[in-house]
Amino acid sequence: MKNNKSLKIRFLGGLGEIGKNMTALEYGKDIIVIDAGVAFPTEEMPGIDLVIPDTTYLVQNKDRVRGIVITHGHEDHIGSLPFLLKDVNAPVFGTKLALTLAESKMHENHVTNYSFNCIKPSSTIKLGCFTVEFIHVNHSIPGAVALAITTPVGVVFHSGDFKVDLTPINGDIIDITRISEIGKKGVLLLMCESTNVERPGYTMSESVVGETLDRLFAENEKRRIIIATFASNVYRLQQILDLAAKYKRKVAFSGRSMEKVTEAAAKIGELVIPPNTIVELGRNKNIPDKDLVIVSTGSQGEPMSALTRMAADDFKNVKIGSNDTIIISASPIPGNEKSIYSVINNLYRKGAEVVYETLEKIHVSGHACQEELKILHTLVNPKFFIPVHGEYRHLKKHVTLARSLGMRESNMLIAEIGSTVELTGKSMKFGESFQAGSRLVDGLNIEDSGNMVRDRKHLAEDGVIFVVCCISADSAELLQEPIIECKGVTLSDEQKDEMKRMVTKTVKGMDVKSMGDKGELRGAIRRAFKNYVFKRTKGTPMVLPVITEI
Amino acid sequence: MKNNKSLKIRFLGGLGEIGKNMTALEYGKDIIVIDAGVAFPTEEMPGIDLVIPDTTYLVQNKDRVRGIVITHGHEDHIGSLPFLLKDVNAPVFGTKLALTLAESKMHENHVTNYSFNCIKPSSTIKLGCFTVEFIHVNHSIPGAVALAITTPVGVVFHSGDFKVDLTPINGDIIDITRISEIGKKGVLLLMCESTNVERPGYTMSESVVGETLDRLFAENEKRRIIIATFASNVYRLQQILDLAAKYKRKVAFSGRSMEKVTEAAAKIGELVIPPNTIVELGRNKNIPDKDLVIVSTGSQGEPMSALTRMAADDFKNVKIGSNDTIIISASPIPGNEKSIYSVINNLYRKGAEVVYETLEKIHVSGHACQEELKILHTLVNPKFFIPVHGEYRHLKKHVTLARSLGMRESNMLIAEIGSTVELTGKSMKFGESFQAGSRLVDGLNIEDSGNMVRDRKHLAEDGVIFVVCCISADSAELLQEPIIECKGVTLSDEQKDEMKRMVTKTVKGMDVKSMGDKGELRGAIRRAFKNYVFKRTKGTPMVLPVITEI
Repeated sequence: MKNNKSLKIRFLGGLGEIGKNMTALEYGKDIIVIDAGVAFPTEEMPGIDLVIPDTTYLVQNKDRVRGIVITHGHEDHIGSLPFLLKDVNAPVFGTKLALTLAESKMHENHVTNYSFNCIKPSSTIKLGCFTVEFIHVNHSIPGAVALAITTPVGVVFHSGDFKVDLTPINGDIIDITRISEIGKKGVLLLMCESTNVERPGYTMSESVVGETLDRLFAENEKRRIIIATFASNVYRLQQILDLAAKYKRKVAFSGRSMEKVTEAAAKIGELVIPPNTIVELGRNKNIPDKDLVIVSTGSQGEPMSALTRMAADDFKNVKIGSNDTIIISASPIPGNEKSIYSVINNLYRKGAEVVYETLEKIHVSGHACQEELKILHTLVNPKFFIPVHGEYRHLKKHVTLARSLGMRESNMLIAEIGSTVELTGKSMKFGESFQAGSRLVDGLNIEDSGNMVRDRKHLAEDGVIFVVCCISADSAELLQEPIIECKGVTLSDEQKDEMKRMVTKTVKGMDVKSMGDKGELRGAIRRAFKNYVFKRTKGTPMVLPVITEI
Repeated sequence: MKNNKSLKIRFLGGLGEIGKNMTALEYGKDIIVIDAGVAFPTEEMPGIDLVIPDTTYLVQNKDRVRGIVITHGHEDHIGSLPFLLKDVNAPVFGTKLALTLAESKMHENHVTNYSFNCIKPSSTIKLGCFTVEFIHVNHSIPGAVALAITTPVGVVFHSGDFKVDLTPINGDIIDITRISEIGKKGVLLLMCESTNVERPGYTMSESVVGETLDRLFAENEKRRIIIATFASNVYRLQQILDLAAKYKRKVAFSGRSMEKVTEAAAKIGELVIPPNTIVELGRNKNIPDKDLVIVSTGSQGEPMSALTRMAADDFKNVKIGSNDTIIISASPIPGNEKSIYSVINNLYRKGAEVVYETLEKIHVSGHACQEELKILHTLVNPKFFIPVHGEYRHLKKHVTLARSLGMRESNMLIAEIGSTVELTGKSMKFGESFQAGSRLVDGLNIEDSGNMVRDRKHLAEDGVIFVVCCISADSAELLQEPIIECKGVTLSDEQKDEMKRMVTKTVKGMDVKSMGDKGELRGAIRRAFKNYVFKRTKGTPMVLPVITEI
């Protein structure tokens, strides 16, 4: 029974960022899941669409899962819900916008059997032995919450993604009063996000962006304005809509996710659209430049996004020209720098003006910087601390920050994907690790092994050579000249001819007739080709010999 | 003869950054080339090692090339010299370190017939109708020069890569006295680098890094120190060597390019190595941590570099542990962020301390910021201006900067790769563009077309399916079941069986016998497979059917 006396925290997902996409709390027979998100593929994963957590552990224990609790509606917190719910049919709890956005994912993925339960900040639900309280926080999407989870061993406080915004748009300041009450009563463990732990000071308020945008609207009064931003940043969109009304401009939303999110947010009242503001690009062609704002996807230079296509002159209803001012109201997510700069270069080439973050205060982060993190640590005043949401370097830095506030080294742990942390009221230690990691979504396939991606990387780096040998089943002699096809490798006709002669020689030199599956022959051809190509090109292409016996 | 009265400036190379890798000046029958560098492949070019300028124009006019002038010894200015000199055997002029580094490239590429001419800053050479004066500037490598080129239509001032460092290491301040003299006499055209034009203020002096390093040496007196930096930043290496002497530590250089550059720089006196300082990692195994500094490559997270391999526990003579402090004395070059952060994460996982730019003043740029650019513009005081070295957005911003200093819009041009700019003493305009662009070096092959890279991208994104059909030459019937091989695509055995049946049906349904090269059959199989796979996986793999007739 000793086993049942500890709370187990299991880190299921996040592609290197623990706690980001999925975390589970387990006590006795009860399990609750915090978030069900996706990660985005790195360049090491060509052709992959999404990275979802490996939920084997939850599937094996699906009857014990009492509920799935969502902190907010960003992709990295809701994106893998349809995949999880196909296997684990537990009730889902989240705020209005998060569930509205998740709902459309269910439809897209043909998941019909699910139970969504809309909660309000400050409310409390009971899931097995856990009591979960939802606490309003500021973030870059409405309806973000932190979680105070009362467990049999004590209270676990999970920050979710948060910032402290004292002048937020359309909403309330983070509920620091309630957080301080919870802290006063005693918190066993704080799990706190670490995204901006390297940044000193405070994150600027969302309203700072509004001030910059207001000035840019005034300065560009005769020009068309195109603003690219994250579709989910409803506060940003609200500020743009309000400015459009102030400056008497119509607004056109452009890009699939922009249309989807604004429709969803408006329907539930999170986005207030001033009357007679919205126009459609295709239908309202005669609006003068000075009377229009286009709000577009593509702030990360995503290949198929609206802004990228506009910059490449490949977007039906918008031709970029010298009367356009494009405002990129976002920061490049690490890894996207080259793409977004390439879009900016193309926009400049078309004569447009471009305003982006290096030059203006045109974006603020949704995550707490060092001073805000210190506020949360101080208010929550936990006994134990686990940094979450961030790469290892962020977690490490967050531990240093907590130490500077008086947290003892022995009361902190840095976990990894697959770690189990065991907590009693008095101790925190690592338990047995469990099966966790990533699964790769490629179109409709889900890949569990890394083989396919490894092959793709190899194909990309070095190309592939395909050799077909038709051999007589009787005499084991070649029935015709070998066929060589290559892709992603450059071989001259002379080189191909020489390689054909090599195959012929190899077949003649071996006792092919007595071979079983011809694996030995294939191996010999592969080796001969690899040597040959390496000597001539320093390349190491994939070599695929096919032996057919007639 | 009108044609001969103008100076032509031809922008040959730079993978999106004009003037960076190669520029030519042409008047009458004389051509001189400024720099012969390489660019580094983007993620759009899998497996490619280097990107070199397409020098077709120079090869076609090789008898007119009077000389190649090198501004400094960085790869993006000397890396394509061996490729150019194979085709265009013109004399090369540059400072000592640049030529020393270029020399080893000649050996590696088996180029033997070349003429290198070492010049000193403040000296002047005559190349056809051009007189080239070399002017000392500050940069992140010794021996960097700007060029004042007297042409028949006037003086062209080329900044090279530069910064203004009033407290440089081992050398002199940029020769602003000479620059102002040249400016006073009258400059027709300024070509000025634009790398840091988005950054306000001044670039910090290299000696600031020395101060930070000094403090870090003092703070880490009992620990092993590992510093990753650019091998070519000889000033940085000098400061590390001096600090090692001050703190009585031995220095081990680690990584091939680090060993190569330090040897070359020491040989010509650009790097002063204090006596009894250098040790070898393999041979001197018993040096206590506190007495050792390892200076390593890998500051960009390059896959095979020393630091990346140390972080992955794959470096023979260095095991990273909790007594190591790793200092990454470099900024991530855009596109390298993910790699370098992954190295930092791995170093932290091994218990080491890591110091990097987000946290400390541990690197300074080698390029001029806005105020330094303004100084150069003001001193040179040119009639015309062409911004160089930078993406389009930088060039655009540099034009804005020049305008703020009083330069007329009509006296500036933004050129692109392949642009020719024609100058007389009174006018500047675009001439006919010419063949220019990039060639891709893949091992020993040089690719001129984008086909190979396009194929590789396709293979990486979607994989490849091979189909082999053996058909009777007599009856046009399948002699055996089709063979399907796939790589980078996931197909179940059932799916493969169904695809085999599809091929059989396709062969039966067509009049294969009367087809010539069977292209029609291959097309039909390709279409059928693409439809089939797309419906099941949303993927669009490359499909390569091979028809053999026996």
